[in-house]
Amino acid sequence: MEVMQVLHMNGGMGETSYANNSLLQKKVIMMTRPITEAAVTALFSATNTTFQAGLAIADLGCSSGPNTLFAMSEIITIMIDVCKATNHEMPEFRVFLNDLPGNDFNTIFGSLLPRFKEKLSEQMKSKYGALATLPCFFNGVPGSFYGRLFARESLHLIHSSYSLMWLSQVPRGLEGNKGNIYMARSSPPKVLRAYYEQFQRDFSTFLECRGQELVVGGRMVLTLLGRRSDDPSSKECCYIWELLAIALNEMVSEGLIEEEKLDSFNIPQYTPSPKEVRLEVQKQGLFSIDCLEVSEVNWNVFDADFDLNWSILDTNSNFDIVLKDGGYNLARCMRTMAEPLLIDHFGKEIIDGVFKRYEALLADRMSKEENAFVNVVISLKKIT
Amino acid sequence: MEVMQVLHMNGGMGETSYANNSLLQKKVIMMTRPITEAAVTALFSATNTTFQAGLAIADLGCSSGPNTLFAMSEIITIMIDVCKATNHEMPEFRVFLNDLPGNDFNTIFGSLLPRFKEKLSEQMKSKYGALATLPCFFNGVPGSFYGRLFARESLHLIHSSYSLMWLSQVPRGLEGNKGNIYMARSSPPKVLRAYYEQFQRDFSTFLECRGQELVVGGRMVLTLLGRRSDDPSSKECCYIWELLAIALNEMVSEGLIEEEKLDSFNIPQYTPSPKEVRLEVQKQGLFSIDCLEVSEVNWNVFDADFDLNWSILDTNSNFDIVLKDGGYNLARCMRTMAEPLLIDHFGKEIIDGVFKRYEALLADRMSKEENAFVNVVISLKKIT
Repeated sequence: MEVMQVLHMNGGMGETSYANNSLLQKKVIMMTRPITEAAVTALFSATNTTFQAGLAIADLGCSSGPNTLFAMSEIITIMIDVCKATNHEMPEFRVFLNDLPGNDFNTIFGSLLPRFKEKLSEQMKSKYGALATLPCFFNGVPGSFYGRLFARESLHLIHSSYSLMWLSQVPRGLEGNKGNIYMARSSPPKVLRAYYEQFQRDFSTFLECRGQELVVGGRMVLTLLGRRSDDPSSKECCYIWELLAIALNEMVSEGLIEEEKLDSFNIPQYTPSPKEVRLEVQKQGLFSIDCLEVSEVNWNVFDADFDLNWSILDTNSNFDIVLKDGGYNLARCMRTMAEPLLIDHFGKEIIDGVFKRYEALLADRMSKEENAFVNVVISLKKIT
Repeated sequence: MEVMQVLHMNGGMGETSYANNSLLQKKVIMMTRPITEAAVTALFSATNTTFQAGLAIADLGCSSGPNTLFAMSEIITIMIDVCKATNHEMPEFRVFLNDLPGNDFNTIFGSLLPRFKEKLSEQMKSKYGALATLPCFFNGVPGSFYGRLFARESLHLIHSSYSLMWLSQVPRGLEGNKGNIYMARSSPPKVLRAYYEQFQRDFSTFLECRGQELVVGGRMVLTLLGRRSDDPSSKECCYIWELLAIALNEMVSEGLIEEEKLDSFNIPQYTPSPKEVRLEVQKQGLFSIDCLEVSEVNWNVFDADFDLNWSILDTNSNFDIVLKDGGYNLARCMRTMAEPLLIDHFGKEIIDGVFKRYEALLADRMSKEENAFVNVVISLKKIT
């Protein structure tokens, strides 16, 4: 499987689209706001330049949905506020939205962006008076962030949320990971090693490329799905895929999927610990670490912290979705990510069956125990 | 009609797509190569900078087809050659592909760009040896070029071919243009004036915006469909639309289209004379004119000058198309442009009927007389 050609969030605006099933990712972006805020403030106070050719911000792995512009909206709002508070002249903003070439850029350009620009302009008017407009220029950048995407020293701030745990490829040497589709407690050590080594290669390539693209003093705020534990097969990061593996194994035992087909399927993802992330940054040497944090977000996005307002107001999500149970929502959320990978490997026919089983499994576990995704958030500054 | 929301070349790769019916536009790009070459050479010899944050090139109205990257391919090839000849260090290239938000950017990013990058890399290897790669970064930029698209002084070269004759809107005040869909010999003077004034507003806005975006010394090469004559209703620019009007009037007389519906339909285009183009540039004052030329391209793209090689090799066009007669090809070429406008106004049902009639009319005229499109090409330098 060519990850670069297969991996993308489900496009369009339909029931199983990423656009309508991305509350979890949105919540994570909101949780990391203080860290982003600190990075932006530091950028403005530390840089001597006046951003003459514009202030360039990139979102890597922007996907195609409400969050595509939600992260940028947060960042631009912070920037406007910082400018106002510090009496900085408002720079022109150059916003670069990156994702793999298979991402649905037509939806971003054709419908998300026009709506977003309207909102931005309202926001500007309310803050700066009737005639104020924000000079903000948008670009789509297709390509893998495991390669160069931008010219040398052309960016000031890079943001990426819930994208960097995706590897550039399924690691080689995963034979023997029988019955599993990701790292699991029953995975042999060589499988865990193969996953980790792929992460090391990919993450150091990522840092190398971004190091070339950022100006000195430029900032980078990255959020990855990860884990707290040193054990890469720990439940906190692997359980969500183990349940999908159970669904697939059920279908093998019912003769709906060939066993060999399942044995050769593995998720191209790595959920690192903060220690592993720090190690790669330090080895690579181009960045200093401003902040490295771990946080959690409940599998049930509608838990006690949930604020109905932001889900309804900003995402254009269907109100029905909000009222359904957690298993349904989590299954749909995972589906937007995993469906293209599953279709590429198993074909279209099995998809509805898999996710029906998966949803039931998720609902069952969620009713019995609390589970959470672990986020590793790191804020970096380019030092040389 | 909101031109910005309606106007786009037919998307996808199907029989009536722009991608498969754009040989005419390609020929025009090839014809203007010497002018582009001169502009690029001048850019390299005149600029004192070493393009440190990359050399930024924009194609405005890039559409979605083989020509999208053909123009850029020509420009980058010229740049590589100029660098080699003048011992300039190869800069990093930043390429910005602009079109209206309804343009099919997914096709550009998903299939045209990957193929193009492969070709570019082969070309580099053959010129600079086995390991050479060209640092070239691509961006999609959705939006109307009758507004700002890029940050201040962020571009070095702007190219636009066969796009700027499209107006930002259908001019107001076209009542009384009965039976016509564009300027025509029978159009009342106030209709001709309304068209011209809309062109003046749009073209000066265009120059104003680009003037802000280009660095001093930056270049701009623009090709517009135009005319030689001072008469805006001259046959050389209006006849092609008059024949479409005849097809539509036939359908009115057959009761297939309502007369009022036809009366309210007008093509948002203006085909200026070189004199009119020069006047706007001079009035605006930010640019000097390096070159202003008029050229012609036969309605029959497969005329005596036609080189079969470039049409087959580069466009992925269907070989069948090449062998068909001129009426067929020209009708399809015009269809890729006019279809979205016609559908928006008249609905889908009439489309096949219109173009069947139009093709017959074109074939008939082409068998009886020689007709050509007139191109106005202007090369500009930003002076202050």
